[in-house]
Amino acid sequence: MRLSQSLSQTSKTFSSDDPTANAKLLTQAGFVKRESAGVYSFLPFGWRVMRKIIEIIREEMNAVDAQEVLMPALVPIEYWQKTGRDNVEIGFQPSEKYILGWSHEEVVTPMGKQRIKSYRDLPFCAFQIQTKFRNEARAKSGLMRGREFMMKDAYSFHANQADLEKYYARMKQAYFNVFGRCGLESFYVDAPGGEFTKKRSHEFQVLTEAGEDKIFVCEKCKLAWNSELEVRKCEKCGGKLVEKKGAEVGNIFDLSTRFSEAFDVKYLDENGKQQLVVMGCYGIGVSRIMAVVAEVHHDEKGLLWPESIAPFAVHLVSLGKDEAAKKAAEELYEELNKAKIEVLFDERDAAAGAKFADADLIGIPLRVVVSPKTLEAGGVEIKKRNSSEVNTISVKELLKSLQK
Amino acid sequence: MRLSQSLSQTSKTFSSDDPTANAKLLTQAGFVKRESAGVYSFLPFGWRVMRKIIEIIREEMNAVDAQEVLMPALVPIEYWQKTGRDNVEIGFQPSEKYILGWSHEEVVTPMGKQRIKSYRDLPFCAFQIQTKFRNEARAKSGLMRGREFMMKDAYSFHANQADLEKYYARMKQAYFNVFGRCGLESFYVDAPGGEFTKKRSHEFQVLTEAGEDKIFVCEKCKLAWNSELEVRKCEKCGGKLVEKKGAEVGNIFDLSTRFSEAFDVKYLDENGKQQLVVMGCYGIGVSRIMAVVAEVHHDEKGLLWPESIAPFAVHLVSLGKDEAAKKAAEELYEELNKAKIEVLFDERDAAAGAKFADADLIGIPLRVVVSPKTLEAGGVEIKKRNSSEVNTISVKELLKSLQK
Repeated sequence: MRLSQSLSQTSKTFSSDDPTANAKLLTQAGFVKRESAGVYSFLPFGWRVMRKIIEIIREEMNAVDAQEVLMPALVPIEYWQKTGRDNVEIGFQPSEKYILGWSHEEVVTPMGKQRIKSYRDLPFCAFQIQTKFRNEARAKSGLMRGREFMMKDAYSFHANQADLEKYYARMKQAYFNVFGRCGLESFYVDAPGGEFTKKRSHEFQVLTEAGEDKIFVCEKCKLAWNSELEVRKCEKCGGKLVEKKGAEVGNIFDLSTRFSEAFDVKYLDENGKQQLVVMGCYGIGVSRIMAVVAEVHHDEKGLLWPESIAPFAVHLVSLGKDEAAKKAAEELYEELNKAKIEVLFDERDAAAGAKFADADLIGIPLRVVVSPKTLEAGGVEIKKRNSSEVNTISVKELLKSLQK
Repeated sequence: MRLSQSLSQTSKTFSSDDPTANAKLLTQAGFVKRESAGVYSFLPFGWRVMRKIIEIIREEMNAVDAQEVLMPALVPIEYWQKTGRDNVEIGFQPSEKYILGWSHEEVVTPMGKQRIKSYRDLPFCAFQIQTKFRNEARAKSGLMRGREFMMKDAYSFHANQADLEKYYARMKQAYFNVFGRCGLESFYVDAPGGEFTKKRSHEFQVLTEAGEDKIFVCEKCKLAWNSELEVRKCEKCGGKLVEKKGAEVGNIFDLSTRFSEAFDVKYLDENGKQQLVVMGCYGIGVSRIMAVVAEVHHDEKGLLWPESIAPFAVHLVSLGKDEAAKKAAEELYEELNKAKIEVLFDERDAAAGAKFADADLIGIPLRVVVSPKTLEAGGVEIKKRNSSEVNTISVKELLKSLQK
């Protein structure tokens, strides 16, 4: 993509009372545009990052045999009445008939019921990647708490508690894989079940000062508890806990039979007896991952994207008005495109300082400069975003290193 | 995917007052589940088809240099007030602050404004693939007219009318490409501009008795007019028109300066003079394509998917309780998966008649049967969904033909 033609543009100004780094940097670097409190548009850079996060999640969900579906946002009011969640305050109600889905147990449970007759039909898991709506009284922290946000939600159906627990453990590992692949180290945190279950739930929290949650961490056991549980000592070793701030990127719930009871979802067991289905549910905040990565991976100059979810692999900069250098940069741009290496090409007529500042702000992992000086030195100048080291290498070497 | 484990299951019953083939067949074949009038869930088969349609659209939009973004569904009321479209009846209003996006001119116009200073910043085009909400008084015709549906909408920005018209023509061709690749022959139809423009708009209509529109077709010129325009004769050759029923799958609008005026979107021209930007907008009903394909491509037994958007390439059926045949079918399933050929595997304990009826209902282009009889004949039995011819070929030949 040519930067001069991109809908994503950098900006020096940022007029907002939102103090978080993700709101400021993602806006200034042209990844998102705030439309109203907690409501964002994703510009081309931001949408590229989102699609990469989505693909990682999709791969990890497929790996635990979850089946992808898409449920509607307009969830009929009768569905919510079955579970008594029609009065939960965060539900937007666009008409008498619907509440916008802020979670989809009420849709997926009857969907699962349709195909369950006997124990042979269990277990299975459905997931979707979808926009959720929550009427948050105070939408804040940039993309971390939105009124509209993208979520991956999965729902599993089991014959018994033991089978749920087996799958819950698989999903837990899949979650660590997702966050790890997105460049985030996460803690597995005990938390209350909220509107979902009377049991404890489990959150995946990333430590950051921008986080909205207070968690108590046992550094020895690498376990943690959400402050809403008020646990005073490590429940495993009895040791003391350290208070930290965390941003929740995922949560998983043992729903037990709460929703199968509400919708009367039963199966015939091996002995021909009717039994209630046991369910679990599993959420990941897709847009929130993007925000938390921005919080964790930035410096005073701008963003530092992990390679796995960077909007582009290469930030190509041409410098100077020299025709030979311009031509060499254009040729390299074509070659990178041909090799299917994602490249942002800054071919604007602008000063080197401004171009480098934009490259630092946008945060693509590798900066490649073509100028009369680099051509004289036999190639291009490369610099990793997370290092101050600058090297000159030949175009051939560059292409080889990127095609690994 | 193993049919026995799929969330998509076939069903003989269909209790609805919706008479359309798409509602009946897509439901019975396990592609969708109706949640309320005009509100559907996409089950795994249906969501696979949708994702393929989305990829085709994405490729064609990239080919006309459109940039992918994602705008919110919660569109601030102030945006709509700027254009006077806050009172359009189809807008769902979930709170005082927002109207759910039923089209996104009001969001994309200020987004474009952000990056436009001079003529050098034009033209560009943004597109998104997103859920739209319209409070249709009478949602009907299965997935053809929904309250919630998936749409591709694109918006282009130009320095002048001539440049818009050039791009409009490129987009027109891209639209024919999209529909053609999805197995649909479409007519380019003159229509009124509705809530978008005082000029005529252009619809892409597919001829089908299930269509909601009346169009007048000149069979000589291959042109057509929506009946709402009440054109009596072909505007090109003056010849007589034939009345047909059509289903609209796309529409494109010359917005002129309607939205750039409302949001004061101007650029500096070559002479340093301020000029209003000229805009176009371009919609495709993604879920409607799926419905129209079901209307156009089915017979009395079920669906007939074009290869390009079929949920799977192969419907593999194992027959009989013979262990050798079961093992051969399992091995073929593994081989197809390894070769990355998408396969639905019907390994259920069911009668041949029931399995064949399900294969016809689901409508995957190629049925492959493994049974003691086919093994004896030296391989597998193949049958195309759109033909009655049955042949026996070796597994090697099958794999070769699929890996073309």
